Amino acid sequence: MGYERSSIAAMRGYVPGKQLASKDVIKLNSNENPYPPSPAVLQALSQLDPDRLRRYPPPAADDFRALAARLHGLRPEQVVAVNGGDELLRMVITTFVDPGEPLGVIEPSYSLYPVLADIHGSPVVRVESRPDFSPPADLAARMNEAGVKLLFLVNPHAPSGHLTTPAALGELARAFRGVLLIDEAYVDFVDPALHHNVVPLLAQHDNVLLLRSLSKGYSLAGVRFGYGLGPADLIAPLLWKTRDSYNVDAISQLLACAALQHRAEAEQSCALVRSERARLGSALAELGFNVVGPSQANFLLAYAPAGASAAKLQRELEERRLLVRHFDEPRLRDALRISIGTTAQNDRLLELLTELLAER
Amino acid sequence: MGYERSSIAAMRGYVPGKQLASKDVIKLNSNENPYPPSPAVLQALSQLDPDRLRRYPPPAADDFRALAARLHGLRPEQVVAVNGGDELLRMVITTFVDPGEPLGVIEPSYSLYPVLADIHGSPVVRVESRPDFSPPADLAARMNEAGVKLLFLVNPHAPSGHLTTPAALGELARAFRGVLLIDEAYVDFVDPALHHNVVPLLAQHDNVLLLRSLSKGYSLAGVRFGYGLGPADLIAPLLWKTRDSYNVDAISQLLACAALQHRAEAEQSCALVRSERARLGSALAELGFNVVGPSQANFLLAYAPAGASAAKLQRELEERRLLVRHFDEPRLRDALRISIGTTAQNDRLLELLTELLAER
Repeated sequence: MGYERSSIAAMRGYVPGKQLASKDVIKLNSNENPYPPSPAVLQALSQLDPDRLRRYPPPAADDFRALAARLHGLRPEQVVAVNGGDELLRMVITTFVDPGEPLGVIEPSYSLYPVLADIHGSPVVRVESRPDFSPPADLAARMNEAGVKLLFLVNPHAPSGHLTTPAALGELARAFRGVLLIDEAYVDFVDPALHHNVVPLLAQHDNVLLLRSLSKGYSLAGVRFGYGLGPADLIAPLLWKTRDSYNVDAISQLLACAALQHRAEAEQSCALVRSERARLGSALAELGFNVVGPSQANFLLAYAPAGASAAKLQRELEERRLLVRHFDEPRLRDALRISIGTTAQNDRLLELLTELLAER
Repeated sequence: MGYERSSIAAMRGYVPGKQLASKDVIKLNSNENPYPPSPAVLQALSQLDPDRLRRYPPPAADDFRALAARLHGLRPEQVVAVNGGDELLRMVITTFVDPGEPLGVIEPSYSLYPVLADIHGSPVVRVESRPDFSPPADLAARMNEAGVKLLFLVNPHAPSGHLTTPAALGELARAFRGVLLIDEAYVDFVDPALHHNVVPLLAQHDNVLLLRSLSKGYSLAGVRFGYGLGPADLIAPLLWKTRDSYNVDAISQLLACAALQHRAEAEQSCALVRSERARLGSALAELGFNVVGPSQANFLLAYAPAGASAAKLQRELEERRLLVRHFDEPRLRDALRISIGTTAQNDRLLELLTELLAER
């Protein structure tokens, strides 16, 4: 007889993107940044005071919170540091949703959201996104009607890269009666010419939280560091109650501070990713792919040319030691989600796809 | 109007031991190891491949799990790695206790346990420990009667250092109908002459989980790394369902592996702590303290001499830049919990206490 809760026994866990140990695999399946983190981050690591290993870390990451607050024009009590963005997603559910109360998502979206709802024991209200993967106009109304307490919206959208404007998000926040968590994991890849900035919404709406990650924009996926931004009243229970008491370790706090202080260097790698995104998108279109666009994230959703199978292409690429992501679910079955790599990696992808499509 | 769950709004968060920024403060209040981690850990840090920062870490810390399994004579599927022991405590609640079902603790004990129960929305069944802080003989019966699904038992006990034997723990596991989590955060400080080893219980009972921490025994509190051991059926849902998808970062995985591989070096610092524990205990007794003993942890619970106030002594020590812990709760109000420091730090404590007691 099992000791697990029946709800846990019944659920399925999250399946992360494949990690092959070998270094000669080209990995365009997990939206990692192909460029290294800022040299300042590596320097901070090499200058670490060993005493920081022995002692408990600052529990609330005060230095980091002060830096992040300054970067975004907020107060430190509007920032909470987390052990990767996924931790904030769990914490907001714990804090704002009673077990059994519903959570909202649009579909398709980040597949972790419903897994976290399952763990919590909450049903998920799923609303289909529009053909361009933007949220439908009646999203707030439908979520309110279903009694949704917390709505997860990833923007830029995954897996399409579609960007919803701050104005549209403000409308949604105004109309929605629960907490709106805007997951900005990919926001560092938005074209700067758009001047996209959602932070001002925090002063206008008491129900908006933003999730930022250092995994992609700062090339620090291995370090597990993200943060939440919001009105102080929404941040306080996360910061002082539902957060694990020492959730972010001393080394990652130090590296995250260095990363924010040297943001310009990370911005250079994001600019390279944007430039490769444009080049790769055009080249895939020339090969007959229907590329969803414009993507404002560090990946492209590309529908396979007529007559080709996306699932088969994914397997054939993997056999050739190049990983991309395929989702076996409605609206995505015919597509590949391709993380933007270095120029050489993208060239290799195009070369392989050209071969594979010619073989048909 | 707030968006928090009413249960979260009503609860109080955990209060960690004070962290003073200044380096000249002697910190004997958080049970940190006063000695540095093994040189092999620092070497692993200096040899880190920078590519590990950019990429997602191995999600389930496979290398570490293999090492820990070998160390304890178990299989890797009997090990789960966590972002500090506190994370495992949260995860076992999430996995084995439906919200509203009761959790059990003995009192006094680690003050985080009831906070985690509050967050989960579960009542706490509290059973008083015996005068020597050991679990009462009818503990399992009382927990069963109350329908407790998960029982937290820290052993060596905090804040007394009392050690319960494997035989007594086996009796408890046999009689208790829920999951027994034995929190072994301090087990590395048990006198080796006792040959204390609880791991064999895992082959005899399907309901026992062990929590190990690298914070104290390996001097790595800043790194946030711990692990759970148990029967594969209890570990599986923690490992594949309720754990955050990338809960331990790449750097801490590397350092934790180095720490386990060079365990003998950490054992040397634990031996120093044990030797100082004996010396400090005797000296405190000479000053008139009633020291609970023998402590098998890296701290002493010392009742103030007749006529002296423990709370006042704690404040006076803090004014002199030396921190110890005082708990304003039943059975502990008249005591100080003193983490074992270096010889020089313990000497300074004794010097200050001698002065303060003479001033009365």
